[in-house]
Amino acid sequence: MASPQGYVSEITFHVRYAETDMMGIVHHASYLVWFEEGRSAFIREQGTSYAKLEEAGYYLAAGELNARYIKAAVYDQQVTVRCWIESHKSRTVTFACEIIASDDSSLLFTSSIKLICLDKSGQITRIPQVWSKWLDA
Amino acid sequence: MASPQGYVSEITFHVRYAETDMMGIVHHASYLVWFEEGRSAFIREQGTSYAKLEEAGYYLAAGELNARYIKAAVYDQQVTVRCWIESHKSRTVTFACEIIASDDSSLLFTSSIKLICLDKSGQITRIPQVWSKWLDA
Amino acid sequence: MASPQGYVSEITFHVRYAETDMMGIVHHASYLVWFEEGRSAFIREQGTSYAKLEEAGYYLAAGELNARYIKAAVYDQQVTVRCWIESHKSRTVTFACEIIASDDSSLLFTSSIKLICLDKSGQITRIPQVWSKWLDA
Amino acid sequence: MASPQGYVSEITFHVRYAETDMMGIVHHASYLVWFEEGRSAFIREQGTSYAKLEEAGYYLAAGELNARYIKAAVYDQQVTVRCWIESHKSRTVTFACEIIASDDSSLLFTSSIKLICLDKSGQITRIPQVWSKWLDA
Repeated sequence: MASPQGYVSEITFHVRYAETDMMGIVHHASYLVWFEEGRSAFIREQGTSYAKLEEAGYYLAAGELNARYIKAAVYDQQVTVRCWIESHKSRTVTFACEIIASDDSSLLFTSSIKLICLDKSGQITRIPQVWSKWLDA
Repeated sequence: MASPQGYVSEITFHVRYAETDMMGIVHHASYLVWFEEGRSAFIREQGTSYAKLEEAGYYLAAGELNARYIKAAVYDQQVTVRCWIESHKSRTVTFACEIIASDDSSLLFTSSIKLICLDKSGQITRIPQVWSKWLDA
Repeated sequence: MASPQGYVSEITFHVRYAETDMMGIVHHASYLVWFEEGRSAFIREQGTSYAKLEEAGYYLAAGELNARYIKAAVYDQQVTVRCWIESHKSRTVTFACEIIASDDSSLLFTSSIKLICLDKSGQITRIPQVWSKWLDA
Repeated sequence: MASPQGYVSEITFHVRYAETDMMGIVHHASYLVWFEEGRSAFIREQGTSYAKLEEAGYYLAAGELNARYIKAAVYDQQVTVRCWIESHKSRTVTFACEIIASDDSSLLFTSSIKLICLDKSGQITRIPQVWSKWLDA
């Protein structure tokens, strides 16, 4: 996982009970939801919302995902999702994140996801120019 | 919870690991997902799919929910969702379910949910006539 | 649903993308997760954590749930969960919540849930005295 | 992603409504839950249950994950999860999966996950010998 670069958004919240599993720690799929919320926060901090992008008829669908689980998060703990854009091309954008324990900044999880721009019919398409403002943040 | 009446669909599956929480049992929200899958199975068994109903521009949104948690389901256990229509009116339909342990038929969960028919704009509307076939199943 | 009474906790967050479904609005099971996070916040605001209660060998398991879906929440919207204790007995505690849109305070969802105190073996037991401090908050 | 090798388990089910998101397709985290259910099925088909392994005081926690999203699954579609063991060492086991559309066998998703064997205290430990039977399946 490359180091954070460019604009890095941060969002902090408590781990929810529903996000745990019978292993007593956070279920591995929950981190993907947190990373996604990190991307939402990133876009909000650019002054817009991913919701508006969808309203314009464009979607960012998951293409490729890599993740490393380093230390387990537990219920009620505060975690911070740090999110940035690793790279982007005409039709794809790759976000990366670090999730850390908010209290001691220990690293819990890192991931990157390549998203593919689709139009309403599900065809791959160019990312609209209006997005370039925050893509190069 | 009234007893099953009319057509009763049944679907059986194993409890997934992700559906548990750190209490070591199934998380209480997971049962709602199973009940919903029971409704999907009910409609499939009528020879159609809820997907087709949405394609026609109608939605069934949750209005009121009642649920009783009787015995906890656990990971890898087989559970059976029995689902039927409790009542329906021009704009609403109320489904009910029993979720039982597949091995000994012990009762785990009962619930009913009143669904409201909406059109694409989110307005309450009459349930289309084409649905009446399975509503009266 | 009775009006809020006694101590009322509040927690505000953005709706996550994963919490939506193909109807374009928040999935009905997601509200239960928010209500549960409201209960976590309630207990945190009493200066403790539900995690500590489980460490002491006690669990609060879902017994009965009632919910009304009034207005659909949507992705990226800020919602506020207001949570309080409706009643409690020696072996059960009933929490209630209102979920509102943070911007205009319009009511989205109300619910109450009766939780049953269990020991490690899953037997119903008395709620430990140490909890009485926040139960009567 | 390497081709399937050794024993390959298969489990087929319908996509649940709750597994979709407002993009109208299955949420990207849902595939991880299906992969996990594929691992559960793999172990069941070896004549045991992952539940029994946890009862013995061992856990398999996520370490590294790679995934490719090839074609979106949709609500009510039947999907088949094919799961096998890619490799294993003394302390880790790597599962891989293919998720295909049950009707035309088109490929939807591939993934591999390296799981780390932990004891009850969360320390990395050797995979117990009793597991070797199905690890070499």
